Amino acid sequence: MRAVVMHGPGDVRVEDVADPAIIEPTDAVIRVTATCVCGSDLWPYRGIEQQDGPAQMGHEYIGVVEQVGPGVRYVGAGDLVVGSFVACDNTCEICRSGFQSRCVHQVMMGAIGTQAEYARIPLADGTLVKVPGEPTPEQARSLLAASDVLGTGWFGAVAADAGLGKSVAVVGDGAVGLLAVMAAERLGSERIIAMSRHPDRQALARRFGATDIVEERGAEGVARIRELTDGYGAHSTVEAVGTQESMAQAIGATRPGGHVGYVGVSHGVELDGLELFFATVSLLGGPAPVRRFLPELVDLIMSGRIDPGVVFDLTLPLEEAAEGYRAMDERRATKALLTP
Amino acid sequence: MRAVVMHGPGDVRVEDVADPAIIEPTDAVIRVTATCVCGSDLWPYRGIEQQDGPAQMGHEYIGVVEQVGPGVRYVGAGDLVVGSFVACDNTCEICRSGFQSRCVHQVMMGAIGTQAEYARIPLADGTLVKVPGEPTPEQARSLLAASDVLGTGWFGAVAADAGLGKSVAVVGDGAVGLLAVMAAERLGSERIIAMSRHPDRQALARRFGATDIVEERGAEGVARIRELTDGYGAHSTVEAVGTQESMAQAIGATRPGGHVGYVGVSHGVELDGLELFFATVSLLGGPAPVRRFLPELVDLIMSGRIDPGVVFDLTLPLEEAAEGYRAMDERRATKALLTP
Repeated sequence: MRAVVMHGPGDVRVEDVADPAIIEPTDAVIRVTATCVCGSDLWPYRGIEQQDGPAQMGHEYIGVVEQVGPGVRYVGAGDLVVGSFVACDNTCEICRSGFQSRCVHQVMMGAIGTQAEYARIPLADGTLVKVPGEPTPEQARSLLAASDVLGTGWFGAVAADAGLGKSVAVVGDGAVGLLAVMAAERLGSERIIAMSRHPDRQALARRFGATDIVEERGAEGVARIRELTDGYGAHSTVEAVGTQESMAQAIGATRPGGHVGYVGVSHGVELDGLELFFATVSLLGGPAPVRRFLPELVDLIMSGRIDPGVVFDLTLPLEEAAEGYRAMDERRATKALLTP
Repeated sequence: MRAVVMHGPGDVRVEDVADPAIIEPTDAVIRVTATCVCGSDLWPYRGIEQQDGPAQMGHEYIGVVEQVGPGVRYVGAGDLVVGSFVACDNTCEICRSGFQSRCVHQVMMGAIGTQAEYARIPLADGTLVKVPGEPTPEQARSLLAASDVLGTGWFGAVAADAGLGKSVAVVGDGAVGLLAVMAAERLGSERIIAMSRHPDRQALARRFGATDIVEERGAEGVARIRELTDGYGAHSTVEAVGTQESMAQAIGATRPGGHVGYVGVSHGVELDGLELFFATVSLLGGPAPVRRFLPELVDLIMSGRIDPGVVFDLTLPLEEAAEGYRAMDERRATKALLTP
């Protein structure tokens, strides 16, 4: 089959690789109908994260089940399914508490690679959620967004305790940040402040429910958010970048007793214990347990209540994956969808 | 009046200082009936924290109101009262959300000094809680414990989300850690694991409700706690020390999706963002909003349901404060009570 392989920084190729097969009885193999390039794929692309030799890429996917192992009971050939970037059994105590991204049997889909024609999905019964009915092309894009960026933004908003009567600040205007705005809106938040300097992303943030836009950054950005929240700071802040500056901004923008949900993969972040102590905010983050939210997200999408797929502003055939990476690296695109 | 003054590391004296007076209309002046030496008083005593010139010490107290300013409505002369180490208005949004230790008008009592015959209490209506009835000597000691160590341990347990069905690990066997064990027990926790190597403190932990004692520290301590919790780690961990090692131990002992409540004042703690990201635990800590819990704690003490005062294992007249500091510094005493 054809698959995206990264050979080194900046060197993405589409090549012939072996077809995936059932290895464990709990596996499924799916024909990938849509996949995409993640912001986190850019870290090795930019050489900031080391990789050892060529690697298949991708961890977001929707597709149709081709084949299942003898231990799979809840999905079967022909089912349209969506899963997240972590395969999980969905039965261990950690999964049942809603943290499927840290399942005791977790398999990172990035180590398998879903930017390909087919993909093996471990722990298929726990990992995959069936899509009811026939999605429109727009809904199919939105389901793909649910696989990672929507689910991650949603977790960020939930971890930040967004909800009724709350003021929510969102640091980061990439796909995850924008969809955290959408989540905060769906959760009933009163005021949603998006931090962004890009007019097109500001527009999308407003479309998703942002009530205010803050262009300032650092200490000025924090001061502006305090101004917008009667001097107290936001009840809830979502951090969707992963740098020292963005974490400091998120913690600084949050009132004592408030919550920070951080979903940007940390790169070089160091938190000073004493500063954190006197900030007196709740901090929760990590790889998002997207599986917790998937059934609800699929329902919201298939009933036409949310359209997260609009974050995809570039669609390419799988063969042109390299251009997808380039466009995101150069910030010409927010998020590139690939069709095998 | 007589008051404890620290002149420099190891140099604690009891001296004549000016009597306190009403400064703001919202002030009260109390006659201190009992005060004590805090673990945090040992930081400057040991020279680890710098201080500029001689300073009055102490921030824990119970006492009888002598005088109130014209703006005070809810307490009056003759009332027996207890307050926490942060004076607060108890009316601002931060206070009303339960984070009185970060009140927008907060005054740190340590900057005033309660190891003295009398003390000025700012924002008396918000800060002080009246004690109903006449406490026994044992209850009076327990009320003093409520002023800081009990309230701080309680916050640690609440911040760690201790409660029904939960496994709770407590890192630190000082007065705060021991009283976090008591709080975890009162909150209905199923399993309470105290980390301690001191037989007398282990005994007190068991008396307060610990079901297990772990003597190992560091990676071994973490492994032992995982063993005791079916390999998952504790649902809830209270950190009551404030060092790099104790924080790492607390985070490592907690399962993904679990909660760490940290109440040890951080000294030199640095948290690695990526490690924290993949730990996927909730972190909440800071100066404890003791005021949130005081009414309930006073009730539990006056109705004889808890006896936190047993953590005081040394009682001295105020004049012998220096010996109280020495005994705690040399770990001959867990907590020294001073009677003016």
